[in-house]
Amino acid sequence: MTVDMEIICVGNELLIGKVVNTNASWLGKRATALGVAVKRITVVADVIEEMSTAFQEALSRKPKFIVVTGGLGPTFDDKTLEGIAKALNRNLSVSKEALDMVKAKYGEYTKTRNIPEDELTPARVKMATLPADTTPIRNPVGTAPAIRADLNDTVLVVLPGVPREMEAIFEESVAPLLRQAAGDRGFFELSIYAEKIMESVIAPLIDTVMHENPLVYIKSHPKGRENQPHIELHLSTSGKPSDNPQNRLAKAALQLSALIEKTDGEVVKVESQGQV
Amino acid sequence: MTVDMEIICVGNELLIGKVVNTNASWLGKRATALGVAVKRITVVADVIEEMSTAFQEALSRKPKFIVVTGGLGPTFDDKTLEGIAKALNRNLSVSKEALDMVKAKYGEYTKTRNIPEDELTPARVKMATLPADTTPIRNPVGTAPAIRADLNDTVLVVLPGVPREMEAIFEESVAPLLRQAAGDRGFFELSIYAEKIMESVIAPLIDTVMHENPLVYIKSHPKGRENQPHIELHLSTSGKPSDNPQNRLAKAALQLSALIEKTDGEVVKVESQGQV
Repeated sequence: MTVDMEIICVGNELLIGKVVNTNASWLGKRATALGVAVKRITVVADVIEEMSTAFQEALSRKPKFIVVTGGLGPTFDDKTLEGIAKALNRNLSVSKEALDMVKAKYGEYTKTRNIPEDELTPARVKMATLPADTTPIRNPVGTAPAIRADLNDTVLVVLPGVPREMEAIFEESVAPLLRQAAGDRGFFELSIYAEKIMESVIAPLIDTVMHENPLVYIKSHPKGRENQPHIELHLSTSGKPSDNPQNRLAKAALQLSALIEKTDGEVVKVESQGQV
Repeated sequence: MTVDMEIICVGNELLIGKVVNTNASWLGKRATALGVAVKRITVVADVIEEMSTAFQEALSRKPKFIVVTGGLGPTFDDKTLEGIAKALNRNLSVSKEALDMVKAKYGEYTKTRNIPEDELTPARVKMATLPADTTPIRNPVGTAPAIRADLNDTVLVVLPGVPREMEAIFEESVAPLLRQAAGDRGFFELSIYAEKIMESVIAPLIDTVMHENPLVYIKSHPKGRENQPHIELHLSTSGKPSDNPQNRLAKAALQLSALIEKTDGEVVKVESQGQV
């Protein structure tokens, strides 16, 4: 059975297009590679009401995992923990464990850089103020701890928005959870690049190959124009090693290539990404 | 009053992280520049059930505009028009106007490139098969027409996922609608880059300035590390020219800079993007 996940990114900067959402694509790629299916990505503003609504909607769909990014820092617009508290209808309070993590960071900073301010100001305590019954997760490269909540149907993880921190925490503390849930299921992909054949002419060929290979998903990505065609055909499948997903992929790719060549198209390149 | 918009992007390639969602950030930036507030971005798979659910949820929030991208092409996985039909509970049928657009494109291709296949294959007719009571929109650079549906509370626009086509149709046919709805409201932004002051130390300074300038939104983007701080403070506001939004922004920026310098931080750069 497929293990599914949703991604929710909090941040006005994503909505106004100031920042391109590379966190979502990074998480999508990593989760997919670990055998987990990402079903939805949602981006909302730094507004408690809007994020808590989005959290509740995602929870109601009962994915196995929800990964939230952004809004864990010390400034007023970092409201994600308040949004989680509201969505889960839980109180916020200072977590001793999280506070120790934050305190240790500022202790380190003071030691290594001779910065005088190591006191726990309200902005710093805020990063350790968590919704009830959530667990802080160590941030190996930054200050704000991430958090984890084990709910009935879903494991909810909240990561910082700074990519370097988000990625480090994901690799250290989230990837193992996904890997364990997905078992030895892997994701495999392969791309065929075709020229001299229009997307509208390839369309029925894809239908034929997908019909004969129901576990392989084929998506066409036009890179040129319809009348100067250069098309990437992306084939993907997932499964356990015992199911030979790679063979399945190779068979579909060979069939599709042969059909393209027979229809006067030209296969100019085949790229196997293997397992991401 | 603010005119609001949601963006919905359809495509497995976005969920598996194969493609970074630059369509969403491009649309977010353009809508914001036109004075429209983007409230939510949703990414869903090429699955009719999942996209129609996302369309219905967005419609129920009654934004003035919903812009959908992706899934208008000729292949089997281009299912967005079916998703729209299901969400609106309308039938699909071939639109003569859309079919003429598609036919004309293939006519052109045949003439200019000596391509024999100008017949209307099922894959091509599919691009002209629209939900009832929707209008095709001219695609100046590609084949598949975009579509528009004028609903009770919302104007729903569906654009192709190919960025070049999406952008051209937006500029030609969607931007004028947004501009008209937003009136002469504009969006203004300015960034202050500070060093030698930690984000947790800046946090209360931002609070002070935002409290005194309630129409200016300030967001901090840490670019360095908490103990080697390099922080972008992004100030933004929107309004009609008669409200002098630019002055409002300049005043807040001056206050914030002064507070940073007073707290031993260093303002290393001020960048005014003006109106995007």
